[in-house]
Amino acid sequence: MAATPADVKEYPNEYMFIIDVPGLKSGQLKVQVEDDNTLVVSGERTREKEKDAGVKYIRMERRLGKYLKKFVLPENANTEKISAVSRWGVDCDCEEEATSRELET
Amino acid sequence: MAATPADVKEYPNEYMFIIDVPGLKSGQLKVQVEDDNTLVVSGERTREKEKDAGVKYIRMERRLGKYLKKFVLPENANTEKISAVSRWGVDCDCEEEATSRELET
Repeated sequence: MAATPADVKEYPNEYMFIIDVPGLKSGQLKVQVEDDNTLVVSGERTREKEKDAGVKYIRMERRLGKYLKKFVLPENANTEKISAVSRWGVDCDCEEEATSRELET
Repeated sequence: MAATPADVKEYPNEYMFIIDVPGLKSGQLKVQVEDDNTLVVSGERTREKEKDAGVKYIRMERRLGKYLKKFVLPENANTEKISAVSRWGVDCDCEEEATSRELET
């Protein structure tokens, strides 16, 4: 399991969840809501296929494997309005409208 | 200092250095050669300026700060041929032509 550090930002009418998922393209991330109140963002980084048979790894520090992050949403969250974007391939921003000023995490 | 895990791949005529630098755009990375034989890749992730004054951080796990990675190049490396690309904003691939089959790191 790769580390998935996240920031959570609260705006007057929405929350923003920002997650570092280096190596993943936007389409490789899955955003789901489980049990009506848990936002689940997941993905998997695998080794790229080599076109060149002559390649050899000398160093291998970058973690491969699954990314998984869960956030418990506030009770009045509108799960119909969740959206996700990827910026610089790096971040998954999941915004969610909610009137609550509290977020349980 | 943020973690900068790297992979190093050896091809018949070049080396590829792949570094995870989540949150950095291509233009925010600096690629230099120091002392004729050390490849230095550096950058800094800072907090984005908020346009909305009403925003509040609830969680802050993503590391800010400097990225820095150094690689000692083989003696016969052609430092004129170093190039860097950024894919999905995530990776900095620095390729360097060299005929040596050995890389000192």
